[in-house]
Amino acid sequence: MSFAKRIDIAITKAIAEGQISPSPAKLAEALQYAVTPGGARIRPTILMSVAAACGDQYPKLADAAATAIELMHCASLVHDDLPCFDDADTRRGEPSVHSVYGEALAVLVGDSLIIMAFEILAKAATEEPIRAVALMRVLATRSGMPNGICAGQGWESETEIDLSAYHSAKTGALFIAATQMGAIAGGQDGAQWEELGARIGEAFQVADDLRDALYDERTLGKPAGQDDLHGRPNAVTEFGVEGAIKRMCDILSGAIASIPKCPGEAMLAAMVTAQAEVLTPIEWRAEQATKIVGE
Amino acid sequence: MSFAKRIDIAITKAIAEGQISPSPAKLAEALQYAVTPGGARIRPTILMSVAAACGDQYPKLADAAATAIELMHCASLVHDDLPCFDDADTRRGEPSVHSVYGEALAVLVGDSLIIMAFEILAKAATEEPIRAVALMRVLATRSGMPNGICAGQGWESETEIDLSAYHSAKTGALFIAATQMGAIAGGQDGAQWEELGARIGEAFQVADDLRDALYDERTLGKPAGQDDLHGRPNAVTEFGVEGAIKRMCDILSGAIASIPKCPGEAMLAAMVTAQAEVLTPIEWRAEQATKIVGE
Repeated sequence: MSFAKRIDIAITKAIAEGQISPSPAKLAEALQYAVTPGGARIRPTILMSVAAACGDQYPKLADAAATAIELMHCASLVHDDLPCFDDADTRRGEPSVHSVYGEALAVLVGDSLIIMAFEILAKAATEEPIRAVALMRVLATRSGMPNGICAGQGWESETEIDLSAYHSAKTGALFIAATQMGAIAGGQDGAQWEELGARIGEAFQVADDLRDALYDERTLGKPAGQDDLHGRPNAVTEFGVEGAIKRMCDILSGAIASIPKCPGEAMLAAMVTAQAEVLTPIEWRAEQATKIVGE
Repeated sequence: MSFAKRIDIAITKAIAEGQISPSPAKLAEALQYAVTPGGARIRPTILMSVAAACGDQYPKLADAAATAIELMHCASLVHDDLPCFDDADTRRGEPSVHSVYGEALAVLVGDSLIIMAFEILAKAATEEPIRAVALMRVLATRSGMPNGICAGQGWESETEIDLSAYHSAKTGALFIAATQMGAIAGGQDGAQWEELGARIGEAFQVADDLRDALYDERTLGKPAGQDDLHGRPNAVTEFGVEGAIKRMCDILSGAIASIPKCPGEAMLAAMVTAQAEVLTPIEWRAEQATKIVGE
């Protein structure tokens, strides 16, 4: 079964369990809305790729871990879109959760998804409790304070920002969680997989900066130019478009070099390369192709 | 060491670990603010009482569980106070978290505390992973959807409320978590401890309804008359003051009768009786005493 299919089945099952009656219908509906149809499911795909590369020794744990990381990511999107943060009316081209269901339910959707993420891992712990606990520790570390995505958002309320800590927590954290949780579910130790996750996270941050600076709202599926608007640091402002793209490619080369020894090392390298292509703006890729042909 | 001291030490340690630098200073400060000096710490006290009554076989797990449940409770208070819910300027007689730190940080404080609750249990899992996982499952079930405090809040956005499900989730859930988690940390099976938690929760709900209806803002330390204002169900509206107090005492008698066989059964019964006294409004107790003397 493809990763995408495994992820979808696992997420659908998790959300359905939160809707057993009697439950408040609007919150149940809003939970469903927040996680489907979903975006690219990048973090759980990375997680499953790493688990597969390590041998996919505990596929049920990998399914649970992939679901947990995606639910945590969705929770962060729902809360980030709230009026007190980005005040975004749209997400993935559709009205954001609070635009449809109101702020109160949007706060509860985020809270419920965070709890559900840990609940899924706890439920999957029956056969491998020690490994499941390791998954929970990684997810918690990379979601909360002081090193997780909550900390990353928290930096945006500071007047003096530690840029490295900010980027690492805001975008890097869940990518590190993805590679480490994938390794744990695959039967390996998570520690040596931090660098790969961190580098993929950095590359995505630069890609996101490029998209935020270059694309319009319709292409993005969410409001554009948010970094400029909120005075947030952005690689394009710092290095220019060309510089930012070069930086992204360098980071991804580093990511490939950092992949630990494992049965599926080559497959993983191919996945990272493929991601690099997806991340690079089409116009720039065309331009580069012309240059190479001309050389 | 007293329960209160054990709880304070454990919470202080947990929050301090979230403040290791580099971390966003305001969020770190707001986390501290949200959990200290704290209220009566009722849920962790019940949890530790049950653990002690069961033999306190895993004191480290009991400390972790008590901290986790209190952090989850604090998270719910911070989010409940937000403008999109109760819009409460004060809590425990002090300005609420969002009044001091703004809405964005208040949302993040709640998120971080939820994550920290599970992180603490995962960290405590080293020696007893299966029991720690059981604690996490109970905490998740009683916090999220469809049976936890998130569901309880969610019911307030419905036009048709299932009153029993609403009360059970909104107030009962974390009391059930307290007795079940206490039993698990004490070395017993949590399942048979549900009724005690549910009944204590019901009693607290009635007591809270009485306080909301009878006391002013200064005595409550938070805005009064919130139920009337938000059109929420309230036992005083339903049964009158006398009726509500009688109901509370009946519930607590039932609670005592429901205590499962355990070494500290008598001690637990005494604790529930003591809680009944604390919960009953002083004026009413004086009146009852006069009646008894007069008989």
